Amino acid sequence: MARPTPLSGFPEWLPDGRIIEQHVLDVLRRTFELHGFVGIETRAVEPLDQLLRKGETSKEVYVLRRLQEDPDEAATRGHREAERGLGLHFDLTVPFARYVLENAGHLAFPFRRYQIQKVWRGERPQDGRFREFVQADIDVVGAGTLPYHYEVELPLVMAEALGALRDIGVPPVRILVNNRKVAEGFYRGLGLTDVDAVLRSIDKLDKIGADAVAELLVAESGASDDQARACLALAAISGSDETVIDRVRTLAAEQEAAHELLDEGLEELGALIRAAAVRAPGVVVADLKIARGLDYYTGSVYETVLVGHEQLGSICSGGRYDTLASDGANTYPGVGLSIGVSRLVSRLISNGLVTTTRSVPSAVLVAVSNEDDRGRSDAVAAALRARGIPVEVAPSAARFGKQIRHADRRGIPFVWFVGEDEQAGDQVKDIRSGEQVEADAVTWTPDASDLWPRVVPA
Amino acid sequence: MARPTPLSGFPEWLPDGRIIEQHVLDVLRRTFELHGFVGIETRAVEPLDQLLRKGETSKEVYVLRRLQEDPDEAATRGHREAERGLGLHFDLTVPFARYVLENAGHLAFPFRRYQIQKVWRGERPQDGRFREFVQADIDVVGAGTLPYHYEVELPLVMAEALGALRDIGVPPVRILVNNRKVAEGFYRGLGLTDVDAVLRSIDKLDKIGADAVAELLVAESGASDDQARACLALAAISGSDETVIDRVRTLAAEQEAAHELLDEGLEELGALIRAAAVRAPGVVVADLKIARGLDYYTGSVYETVLVGHEQLGSICSGGRYDTLASDGANTYPGVGLSIGVSRLVSRLISNGLVTTTRSVPSAVLVAVSNEDDRGRSDAVAAALRARGIPVEVAPSAARFGKQIRHADRRGIPFVWFVGEDEQAGDQVKDIRSGEQVEADAVTWTPDASDLWPRVVPA
Repeated sequence: MARPTPLSGFPEWLPDGRIIEQHVLDVLRRTFELHGFVGIETRAVEPLDQLLRKGETSKEVYVLRRLQEDPDEAATRGHREAERGLGLHFDLTVPFARYVLENAGHLAFPFRRYQIQKVWRGERPQDGRFREFVQADIDVVGAGTLPYHYEVELPLVMAEALGALRDIGVPPVRILVNNRKVAEGFYRGLGLTDVDAVLRSIDKLDKIGADAVAELLVAESGASDDQARACLALAAISGSDETVIDRVRTLAAEQEAAHELLDEGLEELGALIRAAAVRAPGVVVADLKIARGLDYYTGSVYETVLVGHEQLGSICSGGRYDTLASDGANTYPGVGLSIGVSRLVSRLISNGLVTTTRSVPSAVLVAVSNEDDRGRSDAVAAALRARGIPVEVAPSAARFGKQIRHADRRGIPFVWFVGEDEQAGDQVKDIRSGEQVEADAVTWTPDASDLWPRVVPA
Repeated sequence: MARPTPLSGFPEWLPDGRIIEQHVLDVLRRTFELHGFVGIETRAVEPLDQLLRKGETSKEVYVLRRLQEDPDEAATRGHREAERGLGLHFDLTVPFARYVLENAGHLAFPFRRYQIQKVWRGERPQDGRFREFVQADIDVVGAGTLPYHYEVELPLVMAEALGALRDIGVPPVRILVNNRKVAEGFYRGLGLTDVDAVLRSIDKLDKIGADAVAELLVAESGASDDQARACLALAAISGSDETVIDRVRTLAAEQEAAHELLDEGLEELGALIRAAAVRAPGVVVADLKIARGLDYYTGSVYETVLVGHEQLGSICSGGRYDTLASDGANTYPGVGLSIGVSRLVSRLISNGLVTTTRSVPSAVLVAVSNEDDRGRSDAVAAALRARGIPVEVAPSAARFGKQIRHADRRGIPFVWFVGEDEQAGDQVKDIRSGEQVEADAVTWTPDASDLWPRVVPA
């Protein structure tokens, strides 16, 4: 077998990279659980018809077939219930909506869940865009109704989760928020009725610029030049305190763009900005140009950038959706955000922002003086592990210099030498300082900072 | 959308089931890390030609294509390097072997790794057999050589990992071990040369019985009746102390079945049994009929049964392989075992062996007396979380009876009432006992047993 090469778009980390990723996942999980979110996992596959409900993502889906299955049969199988075609999920929202419907009778609402899993999209790989990647989602879903205060709470949970990563060298984040009701109310107040078309054009602002968006608005939404300019004026408003609400009100008054949806949206956005100023000062910014492509959002929408890495795109997005899950009889509105963990971690690793103090868990390597005495080294290792100290035993009874090098290559800080007999007790050497002291496996403890590999700023 | 139904073979757990599974995974991970194994993850997909190297599993592979990809093109694409067909991995050993070859220059050998991921097999689902399931693997891989002592160490790590689950109600396990060299040496000593054929027949012993296996041995391995009886006599030997080695030696002497491979294998198997008697008394049993289907094992082989649930099949299997990974210039021998986590967890849940003290992380629900005061409840929640206490805030300012029921339905033990003003301080109620006391969010701490949901015997 020739030496294999990586597959573009399917990232894998070396052990130290995985230690960083695992630490990020542990911190996220802990924050989510402190906020009462329960973890669930859903299967990796969904029936194709479920995955294709939103036409725009159909191109990205990976379809599965069993190798022994007749391809013709598979092609004509279509939507027969007995054996529907399956595809890999491309996000965790669609599977979660299905899970809620399937298990509604066993869940207590409002249902708070987090979900950390891989997803797959057959897109062309780019910097920060993968074909297989990890997402970390939180959502709250209600039965029938869901109060607005969850739209305030969820981005603040994400602010806390991402903020808890500052210690290890993750840059600060800025969470950009908007409210669909503000945009829709303002456009309707101006007299524009094709709200989705306006949102689609505004969504292109960063890519094609204000002039081109103005032309699009005129061409595709039937806007006059004045209306287009008013839409762009709204999109230009941003800020992290309540004056941002006043500026929108002033603009709307100038444009005589009154609408009850606008008032409702501004009320909500104002509440979010006020709460954020108390609970996550400086992190949340109202940005009236945030539109989000997906048309199922009905209230707040969120995007998050890493400060200094804005060109990476959003690392945590989401919003409020009123009708994602519905079985006809019942509707389950929700609000949620999703962290693109692989996008974040690949940036941390490739830019060398974060590192780890060693590439293996072991704090101690127990040396072996000859193979017949390996059992005594094993017993020392067991005694240390019983007190929660990660340990491995040397692979061979090579000369001690070689065993020390074995530890050194892995960053293992301590090498333990088992005494020859009752008189000559055990000794442990800190191979960084060279200091060697007598030690007893039943009582010796390393410094807390050496117990486990630590993930730290590079 | 109609209410969706589960997909056979793709298990999903309700939140309390997921808490159990997550706890199992946490315990395994901690044990593996205490033994110095570093976690890695590999991508879910491998090139089809890699997955199909072992012909016997080809029927199980799920093949991927992008939905927009031309099916004819995909069918004729074959093994072109530029865009080879991809399939989902069906175990973690094949991807690990590929990872080792791909990254050999960046890894330190012997390389100890654990890997906990989902795998997929298109098999017909049965009790304990799924199409999507979680495996937890440990392996040690050497560059060029790998000492035998790792074949002793690895099943003992698994014995410790599975033993650490006894607390929560997991039944004891029995690890059955054998050594390919013993079987091969014995068969060759008898004069049988098609060792693989003999192993395949012996592997069917539990399924078809001794008489049918004897017929198979005669028909397919060219064995005489005496030789077949000798093979069955070897397969009938089992035991957890060293006398098992003596019994094999006696049988071999009776049958005049001498071979150096037999002596080497018995030496190794004896060393394993001796070490296991010290480090995991009563857990490891030499069982000379364990053959394992896969022909890449070259030394020790392992299977593990849950005591009292033997009919579930093995929950942790593996062995020594000398040539799984090789790039021509270098060969990487290894030894490893794989726990079938989904098989184990589904048995724990479906047989009601294990339960959890509540179905959400929250230890405390902070009540809300009216929506205008939600901010004060949020502040209490933040103060508790800052000291590591998982908390959620009530969804609405309903009457307190309803808020208490909200906690009760989720098993949240404490409800926190925020004082009306400075004079009337906060109170916390243990809703199980009804006891309500004054409390301060900056100092109050729940009993350690109530802090997080606990996974316990049912």
